Amino acid sequence: MNKPFEVVVSRSKSVEDHVLEIIEILNHNSNEVDLKGYGFEINKAVDIYNALKDRLKEGITLEEVSIGSETKDRKRISYLLLRIKRSY
Amino acid sequence: MNKPFEVVVSRSKSVEDHVLEIIEILNHNSNEVDLKGYGFEINKAVDIYNALKDRLKEGITLEEVSIGSETKDRKRISYLLLRIKRSY
Repeated sequence: MNKPFEVVVSRSKSVEDHVLEIIEILNHNSNEVDLKGYGFEINKAVDIYNALKDRLKEGITLEEVSIGSETKDRKRISYLLLRIKRSY
Repeated sequence: MNKPFEVVVSRSKSVEDHVLEIIEILNHNSNEVDLKGYGFEINKAVDIYNALKDRLKEGITLEEVSIGSETKDRKRISYLLLRIKRSY
């Protein structure tokens, strides 16, 4: 239950789908989830976090927010990483 | 030279325009810039930061990354805030 579970934001999945997926993971797989959004999915990552926070309130804390970029097919793509932790 | 200067990412301005604007501010107005992107402009905020970092390298540090949401016209809109500080 130690290593953060990585969830990459998908273009085709809805915000609600991702919220449910993360709740599942926090309940069964890991205390921490790394939610990662690339490029146009960066703002969706923030929407997912806010929707999750509305749902779980004090049940989760945002451990870390970081940004950066990775090279994919010679193009540089920005990402946003949100580390979400279950509080109890 | 103390209060962070707020720059809101604009839909119509290019990443490069914002980079030049922030360099101007860091040189003349303030040691710190709060770069804020709302909704679809969140990913542009990250692109601006990465382009700025490429340009200024160790000249800037990312002091803080935070996310949240604000209510506008009864709709909730997510934002990403990047606090950028001039290193020297």
